[in-house]
Amino acid sequence: MEENGKVLAFDIGGTKIAYGIVCRDGSLAGKVTKVSTPATQEAIYSLLKKIVSQYENEVDAVAISTAGTVDDNNIKITGSVGNLPEGYEKTDFQSLSSKRVFVVNDANAAVWAEYKVGNAKGKKNTVLLTLGTGVGVGLIVNGRLVTGKSGAAGEVHFPIRLDKKRRCGCGNYDCLEIYMSGKALNLDAKEFFKDDNATSYDVIAGVKENRLPAVEAFNHWQNMVLYGVVIFASIFDPDVILLGGSMAHFIDYERLNKEANEQIVTAPFVLKEAAFENNAGIIGAALLCMEQSS
Amino acid sequence: MEENGKVLAFDIGGTKIAYGIVCRDGSLAGKVTKVSTPATQEAIYSLLKKIVSQYENEVDAVAISTAGTVDDNNIKITGSVGNLPEGYEKTDFQSLSSKRVFVVNDANAAVWAEYKVGNAKGKKNTVLLTLGTGVGVGLIVNGRLVTGKSGAAGEVHFPIRLDKKRRCGCGNYDCLEIYMSGKALNLDAKEFFKDDNATSYDVIAGVKENRLPAVEAFNHWQNMVLYGVVIFASIFDPDVILLGGSMAHFIDYERLNKEANEQIVTAPFVLKEAAFENNAGIIGAALLCMEQSS
Repeated sequence: MEENGKVLAFDIGGTKIAYGIVCRDGSLAGKVTKVSTPATQEAIYSLLKKIVSQYENEVDAVAISTAGTVDDNNIKITGSVGNLPEGYEKTDFQSLSSKRVFVVNDANAAVWAEYKVGNAKGKKNTVLLTLGTGVGVGLIVNGRLVTGKSGAAGEVHFPIRLDKKRRCGCGNYDCLEIYMSGKALNLDAKEFFKDDNATSYDVIAGVKENRLPAVEAFNHWQNMVLYGVVIFASIFDPDVILLGGSMAHFIDYERLNKEANEQIVTAPFVLKEAAFENNAGIIGAALLCMEQSS
Repeated sequence: MEENGKVLAFDIGGTKIAYGIVCRDGSLAGKVTKVSTPATQEAIYSLLKKIVSQYENEVDAVAISTAGTVDDNNIKITGSVGNLPEGYEKTDFQSLSSKRVFVVNDANAAVWAEYKVGNAKGKKNTVLLTLGTGVGVGLIVNGRLVTGKSGAAGEVHFPIRLDKKRRCGCGNYDCLEIYMSGKALNLDAKEFFKDDNATSYDVIAGVKENRLPAVEAFNHWQNMVLYGVVIFASIFDPDVILLGGSMAHFIDYERLNKEANEQIVTAPFVLKEAAFENNAGIIGAALLCMEQSS
């Protein structure tokens, strides 16, 4: 990072690709642009290549925050990539630019952004639970990312009840993910409204007007979020747990912070909303890229 | 660690105090001695003081593996100490010797012994679940101990079912600990035998002769151990999970290793028994003490 200290950073998800230029201090040099994720691996690659050519001369490196597990050297994807198109996991990111290309898992990028410049700034033991369609988990212990042996640490595909009530997308029953994700609130909507067409939007709209059964459905979901928070608080004894992602706005932080701290047997932690909803991946990937090349 | 590279190490639990002299390579210089834990804090201190005076001249430092959370500088206890006598947490360990006194939590000492010289040797992402009366959890990530902000990481006091079936010693319902500990197998014995006098000994004896309901009680308990293993495998993506403590001998490792790896969505890990049943605390505390002073 000599020349200008800027990085072109992408956040690649199943629905959208966002990109922007990030400065050394984690601030954005200009706007973040969002485009729909193309339907094929080839089209994604072409799109990335086109954007890289456009900005390459302005930056020192390219950072990519992506769904999927990533190898220890931050070169390529090594594992499952959720709802991105077939073949995406084989994308040759290194050929996108003659400059350095740095690849990192999106949950890890996001928690790094929060730790460096967000709502967990300087907190060396931090958990970020990203509540979107699924649940992403970013973990920092002793000021370092927890990635595990294969880059897959932070999975929430383990059961939280024993009576096989809900099938999770992973094939198993009753994973934490299928109770605390956006998808979970959709299922709660159908259950509590007794209507297969009800969605999480109906729940959120109903809660605003304090209507039953929306309030009950929401409380059920929020209690499952509390459940997940208590698990991570008990295992990590963190300084802070942040909730991020599109569903994080709806949480009653005062209530959940109090209740989670009443349930744990360890020293109190702080539960709050993440600083970045949309740009955490971009900022975190760029900061990690700068750090590991300086 | 100049003079002779040896450490006098203690492992202090609610039932027994064990001690021995540990060499630089983690081997024991002579036998480990065990005595019953005295009933008062004063008597524990006097006992430790007497043993330290006896061996002080042969060693460079004193290492203490203890129940309870310990401060970041490994000086003193900072939190709850399970079933040790009142006031024990205020013990002034530093006054025991004119040489260095190093204090560490017993679960952390045990996993360090396994990582350095035991069955997780060189495995930088290791989980040790110690199945005794309760459950102790030792965690290594990126080759470093996970202690959390207050030394309390690795608590298993979070619920694994939602129907409030069993009260845990911590006051909450249905914590993982009250389903996978030795205490849990005692409760399973009473339930499956429909006899309030039945204990885990009846279960183990019955399993040896392949008798019902002992086999059912055991399978229920072992499935709960599997449950806990799957949670830690999913969250840490570890190289290895070890089971230690007095209950670890009874586990069917071939079966649990297979089933746990079928349930997780991450890359396979290895489940096996810990190398040290009784001396892990002594060895790990001594090795950590040597490492942090060299």
